[in-house]
Amino acid sequence: MPTVRLDIEYDGSGFRGWARQPGLRTVQGELETALATVLGEPVELTVAGRTDTGVHALGQVASFELAAQPPGDLTRRLNGVGPDDVAVTAAAVVADGFDARRDARARSYRYRLLARSAPNPFELGHALWWPHRVDREALEACAAALPGTHDFTAFTPTQTDHVRFERDVLGASWSQEGDVLAFCITADAFMRNMVRVLVGTQLEVASGRRTVESFVSLLGRAPRSEAGETAPPHGLYLESVAY
Amino acid sequence: MPTVRLDIEYDGSGFRGWARQPGLRTVQGELETALATVLGEPVELTVAGRTDTGVHALGQVASFELAAQPPGDLTRRLNGVGPDDVAVTAAAVVADGFDARRDARARSYRYRLLARSAPNPFELGHALWWPHRVDREALEACAAALPGTHDFTAFTPTQTDHVRFERDVLGASWSQEGDVLAFCITADAFMRNMVRVLVGTQLEVASGRRTVESFVSLLGRAPRSEAGETAPPHGLYLESVAY
Repeated sequence: MPTVRLDIEYDGSGFRGWARQPGLRTVQGELETALATVLGEPVELTVAGRTDTGVHALGQVASFELAAQPPGDLTRRLNGVGPDDVAVTAAAVVADGFDARRDARARSYRYRLLARSAPNPFELGHALWWPHRVDREALEACAAALPGTHDFTAFTPTQTDHVRFERDVLGASWSQEGDVLAFCITADAFMRNMVRVLVGTQLEVASGRRTVESFVSLLGRAPRSEAGETAPPHGLYLESVAY
Repeated sequence: MPTVRLDIEYDGSGFRGWARQPGLRTVQGELETALATVLGEPVELTVAGRTDTGVHALGQVASFELAAQPPGDLTRRLNGVGPDDVAVTAAAVVADGFDARRDARARSYRYRLLARSAPNPFELGHALWWPHRVDREALEACAAALPGTHDFTAFTPTQTDHVRFERDVLGASWSQEGDVLAFCITADAFMRNMVRVLVGTQLEVASGRRTVESFVSLLGRAPRSEAGETAPPHGLYLESVAY
């Protein structure tokens, strides 16, 4: 059966996350509806990174199988019938059996902070406004401790479906462009809320409410209660997926 | 009387332009309401660049006089009571008699095009989606013809309050960052719709529907009917004002 890979961008503000849920507006639900309209058959999407309510994506990848060859102008047709807050940037037939979730080797997320005293109307819903103190050196020390395999139990809700809490972080860094301070992290896979709790906890370090050492000690199977708050979803972007 | 300069950013999507109008939501109206709340006296804003419905600003400047010295934390207080789609990035007492409009030596505008085949949910309302052909060389030839003093009668509505149609263009260029192609222009002053008609006409050149020579010939007092369409407002930003 032909297998199709979709590359997708979405503004998460208007969605209850990726995963289809009856009666709720989700990215998967909207895309599957658009696909059924264009293809004339129902398909089921497999996704590289399930995002939560309000989380954005710049480089999401999904895949599906279908009975017949898709039309050549699938990208254009999907964008024509789909909603404005999701864009399909590429739709292509790929090798049989490609699976966007299982075949992904690494995911990269970015968390954006608007680090200035005044708010910015263009970043509303797209960055966390952070008019507070930022100790860049401390943030960089936190990020430097992340690469490698660690137990991230402290960084995901206690109530969980995850059965394995180790993740292999391939890179983590803080960078600044203009007023936007961003945390970028790449790992083999992520647990629920993991990036948001990593950011929330690092912001306690940035504002002097927690030491770098306290942050680093959480990477050894500490309980969730010892980490910081979950940063809000609207600063978070699934940036890319590597295969 | 103390004179205050405000530096302002706004997302124009939710406004009927800058100028106060009874019963309509405008940037001036919202800011004057916020100022009256914070200062306890009504003030009247003078602005460097009146923007139309839907046009954005990154570096708008306004000024006003008031009877007493303003509070020291005026910026923070204005952002606290004002709406989310306007931000005051600085509010400072300046030399008596400063006038944001009269004292401005130059204004710079930017028009942003999303130049790719797929739409982008993050640019909705903030760039003109242009999935068509773009002849970059032709655009650059158009921009190169702009610096200097020209009669821009062709680039403003026939029904007009303007009495003088010459403007001194100090710089004009096209540049690309990622998928965004932008036209930047600096001049002593602009007439109504001038940047948008300049962009609309250049896009005809970019897509091969008009020659560079035809564009250049418009700069010599041609009638409005010979120029191209007015590009939509949502791609336009007042970028900065020089004093």
